Amino acid sequence: MDIDTIAAISTPMGEGAIGIVRVSGDDALKVADRLYKGKKPLSEADSHTINYGHIVDPKTGEITEEVMVSVLKAPRTYTKENMVEINCHGGLISVNRVLQLALNEGARLAEPGEFTKRAFMNGRIDLSQAEGVMDLIRAKTDRAMNVAMNQVEGKLSQRLQKLRQALLETVAHVEVNIDYPEYDAEEMTLEILQEKGTFVMKEIDKLLQTAQQGKILREGLSTVIIGRPNVGKSSLLNSLVHENKAIVTDIPGTTRDVIEEYVNVRGVPLRLLDTAGIRDTEDVVEKLGVERSRKVIKDAELVLLVLNYNESLTDSDKELFQLSEGHDTIIIVNKTDLEDRIDINSVKELAGNRPVVTTSLLKDEGVDELEEAIKDLFFQGDLETGDMSYVSNSRHIALLNQAKKAVRDALEAVESGMPVDMVQIDITRAWELLGEVIGDSVHESLIDQLFSQFCLGK
Amino acid sequence: MDIDTIAAISTPMGEGAIGIVRVSGDDALKVADRLYKGKKPLSEADSHTINYGHIVDPKTGEITEEVMVSVLKAPRTYTKENMVEINCHGGLISVNRVLQLALNEGARLAEPGEFTKRAFMNGRIDLSQAEGVMDLIRAKTDRAMNVAMNQVEGKLSQRLQKLRQALLETVAHVEVNIDYPEYDAEEMTLEILQEKGTFVMKEIDKLLQTAQQGKILREGLSTVIIGRPNVGKSSLLNSLVHENKAIVTDIPGTTRDVIEEYVNVRGVPLRLLDTAGIRDTEDVVEKLGVERSRKVIKDAELVLLVLNYNESLTDSDKELFQLSEGHDTIIIVNKTDLEDRIDINSVKELAGNRPVVTTSLLKDEGVDELEEAIKDLFFQGDLETGDMSYVSNSRHIALLNQAKKAVRDALEAVESGMPVDMVQIDITRAWELLGEVIGDSVHESLIDQLFSQFCLGK
Repeated sequence: MDIDTIAAISTPMGEGAIGIVRVSGDDALKVADRLYKGKKPLSEADSHTINYGHIVDPKTGEITEEVMVSVLKAPRTYTKENMVEINCHGGLISVNRVLQLALNEGARLAEPGEFTKRAFMNGRIDLSQAEGVMDLIRAKTDRAMNVAMNQVEGKLSQRLQKLRQALLETVAHVEVNIDYPEYDAEEMTLEILQEKGTFVMKEIDKLLQTAQQGKILREGLSTVIIGRPNVGKSSLLNSLVHENKAIVTDIPGTTRDVIEEYVNVRGVPLRLLDTAGIRDTEDVVEKLGVERSRKVIKDAELVLLVLNYNESLTDSDKELFQLSEGHDTIIIVNKTDLEDRIDINSVKELAGNRPVVTTSLLKDEGVDELEEAIKDLFFQGDLETGDMSYVSNSRHIALLNQAKKAVRDALEAVESGMPVDMVQIDITRAWELLGEVIGDSVHESLIDQLFSQFCLGK
Repeated sequence: MDIDTIAAISTPMGEGAIGIVRVSGDDALKVADRLYKGKKPLSEADSHTINYGHIVDPKTGEITEEVMVSVLKAPRTYTKENMVEINCHGGLISVNRVLQLALNEGARLAEPGEFTKRAFMNGRIDLSQAEGVMDLIRAKTDRAMNVAMNQVEGKLSQRLQKLRQALLETVAHVEVNIDYPEYDAEEMTLEILQEKGTFVMKEIDKLLQTAQQGKILREGLSTVIIGRPNVGKSSLLNSLVHENKAIVTDIPGTTRDVIEEYVNVRGVPLRLLDTAGIRDTEDVVEKLGVERSRKVIKDAELVLLVLNYNESLTDSDKELFQLSEGHDTIIIVNKTDLEDRIDINSVKELAGNRPVVTTSLLKDEGVDELEEAIKDLFFQGDLETGDMSYVSNSRHIALLNQAKKAVRDALEAVESGMPVDMVQIDITRAWELLGEVIGDSVHESLIDQLFSQFCLGK
């Protein structure tokens, strides 16, 4: 089968020193050679070499760019296909023009994630590894990157394969039992089923224990700062952002109005919501503090509720306490540099078991305690020194939960004396569900959908 | 002399499929080898090869990234030094982490433009070529990119070198004349001086004729849209942006509030000013239209003044006509889909020799004419099919003007019978000034300043 040749820009959009147009497919070298003028044609270059030359518009003969072209011949490439990476001077026009020429000369514009999809389809990596690649790119903290890297390296896949192997052996035994009932192997089969099933359940449980933290690492914790006007919301935002070097991300495909700001607080990636609102509305009337909070709080996983140390608690403050119920919340009593006018005991009473931190953001006091409190809320310490084989992906978590249920059903069926062929169905189902994580037996439309969330050029 | 080893991220900031950390200097391979784990050390790899491997944190032994590393050994490299380019999965954390490891292991963070500065200092390219590299990256239209590419390829340098050669020959003659007055070569010297001087002046003039357009191509034409509320400013903006695929640029080093929007109108790059103002203030009172215009108009090179076809001219309209005087202006009478209520003759009278275009932006009528009018205002057609050796850089334009003046002074001195040694000073000065364009005889601080405007990693 002929594999059509795809091309895309693989560096982020923007002005930079280097921009890359990536081409993959049977004709990658041929397509590139039609644009490229160097010492010798790229198709004659050795694999894994870098070749200096120029991109020349075949129609006009005009020199378009000065380039370094990587030649990567199948199968030792990202996609396992012939690949060419054209490194241009990194302007917006430049890379777009080179891409356009590649498209004119026979390449097709790659879909988002199509290079990685090919790596998967061609068997170089499995599905969870492919998903790890995207997590790696999206990672907002070192720790999230470690988790993703482990997944790319196949650590999760290996653990799942071990479980699948155990399930497969069980199924084999059950089948012998069904096919040759005269052997009277039932006793042994039940023993094996219980032993292996229990082992698989425990292992899945271990994985699922990492899921909550894994998910936070992967997706960030949506966080809002609420409080009445002039309690120091803006100072808190600035303090978090400046101490922790915010990462500002334009979400692909949306306008510039939607910008996500991430800060990395001791390994916990906070995704700050409504930061524009905080920056814009510092001097409005009291009521707005509560109204704005009501609006933004509903998507929040972490609420930072700021109070004024220098004022008595108001009804608005109490309303904010109510609003934040049901969310992980940290109470910040700010402005300890001013006179003590708040009734701290009432605050603690309202807080219940939610942590209370006092700060003077003006004097940069209490910020350490606040960050520690944020960390403690999400990382209780027991898991964080692990091997970073976290389960972090909602799809994986759902599949693991289903697989666990199937194994439990099998074990219960055995105990209640159900016939072994009933049990076989559940065990096979569990085996299939774990397979879906790594992309065995996954529906094509799901694969399309997963890769479409990738970035262009990957 | 030991050349210290520098490192920087060379791809634009943001999430992408590939991120590159570039390293250059004597120890580039050594530094990279301390982080790299592959089949064999990079220092043992052949030049111009790509090597698969992993980045491992030397302190923890932890695998940080999966990479493809380009090994480029001196002197056939961008900087003429040993270079390594580490291609990572392109996340924000990923490239920053690899950079950090390279810095820990002995590289120094490169200053903006330092790789290109080294290419210049090491004699691979001259200064105008280096400036061309940056123009290439910043180019907002194909034509601007062609101009920059020509400069990178040394076309401008070659033309200037020819002129410098002519001036040098003249100086040599003059010197013979001074040193050996007995030869009585004065007659011939004067002839040569006039011939060569006139030739150089003409050539400089040719170059300067391209300067206005060159500068527009390079820097874009700062453009404002003015008009009373509800005349269709916002529609005009959308029409220009959507028909011409705006390029939105975050200016490096500033907050996200300062965003430049470029549209490419038939090869003329418009830099749209105050687009936020237009998008935000469509429904304010009449007065604001004029007040806002007064503020934004002062930086504009092109003013697009929008009037309402469906209303009589108001005093505000007339004020806007006055405000735009002294700027290139196009008058747009919009909403021809509605009833004709404007006195078009008055409009034309107020417009004087400024072009008037009628449009119905709602029905997408008249946009072609408007774009043609913009193009005609800046490209009269005679130069645009040239060889793209435009002079586009203000620094170059200033130097060329000074050089021209020096040559003219020399010619005038000759004519008024000044002694030849006086003439020699002017000719030498012109030779030096042309040399400054290509970086001969340029002060170090100027070089530092020029390269500091480059982007990081270039």
